[in-house]
This record gives sequence, C-alpha cells and structure tokens, in this order.
Amino acid sequence: MPKSMRAGAGEMRILVTGGMGTVGAGLIAELRGRGHHVVSCDLHHQPDEVGFSLRTDVEVPLYARCDVGEFRQIERVIERCGPFDYVYHCAAEFGRWNGEDFYESLWRTNAVGTKNMIRLQIADGFRLIHFSSSEVYGDWPDLMVETVMEEYEIKQLNDYAMTKWVNEMQIRNATAQYGTESVVVRLFNTYGPGEYYSPYRSVNCRFLYCALNELPWSVFRGHSRTSTYLVDTVRTLANIANNFKPGETYNIGGVDVHSIEELSDIVLKVSGASPSLVEHRDSEILTTLVKRVDISKSVRDLDHKNSYGLEEGMRLTANWMRRVYGLV
Amino acid sequence: MPKSMRAGAGEMRILVTGGMGTVGAGLIAELRGRGHHVVSCDLHHQPDEVGFSLRTDVEVPLYARCDVGEFRQIERVIERCGPFDYVYHCAAEFGRWNGEDFYESLWRTNAVGTKNMIRLQIADGFRLIHFSSSEVYGDWPDLMVETVMEEYEIKQLNDYAMTKWVNEMQIRNATAQYGTESVVVRLFNTYGPGEYYSPYRSVNCRFLYCALNELPWSVFRGHSRTSTYLVDTVRTLANIANNFKPGETYNIGGVDVHSIEELSDIVLKVSGASPSLVEHRDSEILTTLVKRVDISKSVRDLDHKNSYGLEEGMRLTANWMRRVYGLV
Repeated sequence: MPKSMRAGAGEMRILVTGGMGTVGAGLIAELRGRGHHVVSCDLHHQPDEVGFSLRTDVEVPLYARCDVGEFRQIERVIERCGPFDYVYHCAAEFGRWNGEDFYESLWRTNAVGTKNMIRLQIADGFRLIHFSSSEVYGDWPDLMVETVMEEYEIKQLNDYAMTKWVNEMQIRNATAQYGTESVVVRLFNTYGPGEYYSPYRSVNCRFLYCALNELPWSVFRGHSRTSTYLVDTVRTLANIANNFKPGETYNIGGVDVHSIEELSDIVLKVSGASPSLVEHRDSEILTTLVKRVDISKSVRDLDHKNSYGLEEGMRLTANWMRRVYGLV
Repeated sequence: MPKSMRAGAGEMRILVTGGMGTVGAGLIAELRGRGHHVVSCDLHHQPDEVGFSLRTDVEVPLYARCDVGEFRQIERVIERCGPFDYVYHCAAEFGRWNGEDFYESLWRTNAVGTKNMIRLQIADGFRLIHFSSSEVYGDWPDLMVETVMEEYEIKQLNDYAMTKWVNEMQIRNATAQYGTESVVVRLFNTYGPGEYYSPYRSVNCRFLYCALNELPWSVFRGHSRTSTYLVDTVRTLANIANNFKPGETYNIGGVDVHSIEELSDIVLKVSGASPSLVEHRDSEILTTLVKRVDISKSVRDLDHKNSYGLEEGMRLTANWMRRVYGLV
C-alpha cells in the first residue's frame, strides 16, 4: 500500500515545509481547520517543537526546526514525525532581488533543498506539492498558460526564477525515473494578512508598509500584475490534497490585471498616506512587464476562487499590518 | 581603459579556474606554450601555490588554492594574482551521475561558483570564457546547433545539465544588466591523456581504464556520440583569447559520430582486452540517445580542428594510461 493511501478519506498526515512563511502559515491554518494532522518545519525554534535529543515538553509537537538544505535535518523530521501522506514543500528563498542578494542561500535552499525532498520522496513514497512561481514564465508577453513552458523556449530573468524552473525539471525527471507522484503550483503575486514586511516582500506588502509608516516608495511604470488574497490562495492549495492529480501543474493567481500605479493608488486610499510619498520611475530591467495568468485549470480541478477585490483585500491587510506593527 | 585591454597583443594575463581538471590542465599547458601569463586555481594544495598568510616560497607562484563556491577565496585570488584580461572558468562539478550523487557540491560549485565569478567580473571587468556542456541540449534529437537553445523548449535531463544551462542564463542576464563580456563554450565528449579515471569520467576514459585493468564494463545500446581528442579541444579553447567575440556561444566537438558499441570495439583493439569483459545493455534512461553536433561556428571563428581519429586518439590515451597507472 503506498504511504499516500495510509490515511482514510478523512484525516490526512501532512508536512508543510517553510511553515512559518506567509503561504506556509496560512496553509497550515487552513489544513488544520479541515481536521488534518499537520506538522510544520522551518528554520527557527518554536514553543511546540520536537526536542530531538532532549525531552519534548509539549504533549503533541507539531513543529520541527529544520533547514531543508541539510539532508540530515529534513530526513530526521520525516523519520521522527512521519510518515506523511502529503508534503507541501513551501520552504524556499523567495523573490528575485532576495535571490540576487543572497544567491548562496537561494541555490542551497531551493535547488539542493528540493533535491533533498525528492530523494526522501523516492524512499518514503509521500505525495509532493511543490511551490513554483510565475517567475518561471520569464518575460513571456502573452497569457501565461501552464502549457507555455512545454511549447516555447523561455529564459528565466533572474536566479530566483531559475531555481524555480530547475525544481520543476528535477521533479519531472524524478517522476520519469522513479515514478514519484507530484503536483506543481505556480503562485502569482499573493498578498494578505500574514505577510510580514521586508524590502524583499511582495509589492503589495512593500507599498502598504511604506504608506503606513510614512516612508517613500517607488512605482515602476508599465508593469502590470494580478493579485490574489492569501485566504483564496491557501483554500485552493488545501484542496489539492482532496483532488491530487500526479504530474499536474497549476497556475494559482488572480483574474483582474492591475497596473502597479493602480495598486499604489489603492494603497494611498486605504492607508490615507500622502501622495507625495510616491515616486514614479521608468520600467525596471529584467522584470516582466505584464503578467496575465490563465487560471482555468485550477478553477476546474481545485475550485480556485478570487473572492476578494483588490481594494477590500488591501484594506484588510492594512488593518492587520496596523495591528501587528502597533501603528495607530 | 577596460582591464581586458591592459595586456598588449602579445602576452595576456589569464586565470584558469579548475586548473587541475582534465581540460583546465591541458588548456594551461597550451596557453603557457603561447607565452601567456597563466595563473591556475583549484581545490588542492600544489608546490607552486601562493601563501596567502605566510611566505610564498617559489619565486613566481602560478597557482592558488581556491574553492570557487566560496566568494572570499576566489575574490582573494583575483586581488592577489590579478588583474586578469581573461578568465577561463573551467571549475565545475562534472558529469551527470556525479551531479546526481553529489548534488550538494554540484549546485554550490556550479551555480553559486559561477555567480561568484560573474559578480567579480562586474567589479573587475575581465572577459569570461565559461565552460558549458552538450548536456544543455537535453534529448534534442537532431543536429545540435548553438541556436537550438534559442528556438526550442528543451528540458535538461539531469541536475548537472541544469546547472550548465543555469550558468548560461546567469551570464546572459549579467550581460543584459551590467554589460559584462563573456563567451560560452559547450564541450562535447572530450577525452585524452590527462583524464584520470574515476567511474564518473567520460565513457572513453572508463572503458579504457576497465580494459587495461581487466575489469568488466557495460555498453548501452543505441547511444551515439562524437569524441574530441583533448589536444584539439584545448587548441581551440586557447584561440578564443585571440578572437574574442562577446556574447557568442560555441559548440566544441567532433565530426564523426560513433556508437558506444563502436567505441567499445576500439577499446578492445587498442588495449588487447578480452571481449568477454563487455556486457551489452539496453538504452539508459534520461540519457540522450544520439548527439550530433554542428561545429561550423567554432571552425569559422576559432579554427577548431579534429586532427586525431578515434582509434589513434584512444591508442595514445591507452599509452598514457598505462604509464600513469603503472600498467604493463
């Protein structure tokens, strides 16, 4: 019996790597809300963590400290807390400029870390849900459909994008050679409560944080994106475990394309910040101009919905941000 | 004045990373034979190396111990031994199975190491000759022309191939963003004296070593390759510094396609080994069946020549191997 069948139709045993990240944390809340047994791992210590060589104080440890770039550490999580039916592999160095500024960490965590997961998957048989990115589409100018990557020669514009595409090929080759069962999700710009600010975070998060703190921000002209509210993203992600189709790849994104200027205007509106904080600049090099995404496949298979409009979502995010950063 | 113009038309200052590798060592001999000032770096200690924090005993140190995956170490080589007009970046984890078995080292040395070189190139202005591989062509079934990678969606079949393709994109993006001047060479199966045996080396080296040591070897049916004798490869590589065309990519390979069975037969002939050592097996998974290469561009720009036939080259290699391994 494959390990992925161990759990009944109801509760499943799930590991979420990168469980303290924006998407990981939201996904864990959603999966636990559905009654699944979910173990989280990430780089830091946490109160509910496993003590590997010492006594675990909490009754049911649901967290393990682990760097997925270190094989021994992630292998140990699976030995101690597994077996798992599903692994949502969210752990990654995130973002294009983060990848350029911390490329050593990027390649170790993303390329080696995912290879580690695949090797464990071959041995242990769990089903893998891998987190890829819209960045794999490079500067593809038309509608981003999943099959574009099968049909056209696309070059990734930065190392972060390359790691994500490398991961997809690693997974594909492992399936061809070892029969592993995996699904890939390509996330498009996702934002919402739970995304803590750093200058490397999503444009939605950056603008809003700057606005609420009366800091200036730059708006590049000519770029357009969709935005997906985190609640919508994690619901769709959680649905994968209920309709797992090995070998599939899904875009998970928004429907309404907005320019970065429009996003900035909404930020001004929901924050009440002064328009004088906004600096307009020319198009950014090696950054995709327009990202339009075809989500029909995730709508069909995963019941993906965009139930929050951008202004509503940004208003909720602003409220959350004011609270967590103690802003009045 | 760009640093690449510092030297006159005659002697040039050149760094070869991975200088103790098969291609690196051969290239250094060729470049020094042409009168250039060539510094080598690699992972191990050597008699003619720089003492960084202690006295350098030799008069002119032409070697520095350095792991290109560690930024501080390669930066120090350039500070101490440079500036350089050209850097031949040969340092890499080599080979598809080596990459699968040592993928942590692979990604660190190849992806991070090359990124380190590019960052130093941006700062220092040297011209980079980067060593890529025929593996980037994946399972492309037709003639491998350099432009194939611009026109068709090709997926690399193993992590080693991915690192080489990643490097090409890293270099391309750096040129777009920072105006770096680089040339990429895609080496096809190269063999000859100087290639020390391990099970991860070229098929030519493996078969010959096994034959000379009366060890069995496996021949996969249905695979074909070209082979280039190392002397021919390094002559062509050295010519790049005399006709450097930034942004170009060159295939460097052989003209005569031979099956792996034919190669094995030649090994039997030049070694005198027993045919009973040969085991025939079916086609290998995730390995390109036929590699036919278009070398017209390297012939045109770099005067690439294949002046050794396979049997002659293998006979010379066998003689060398008998000598270095003390085989009668």
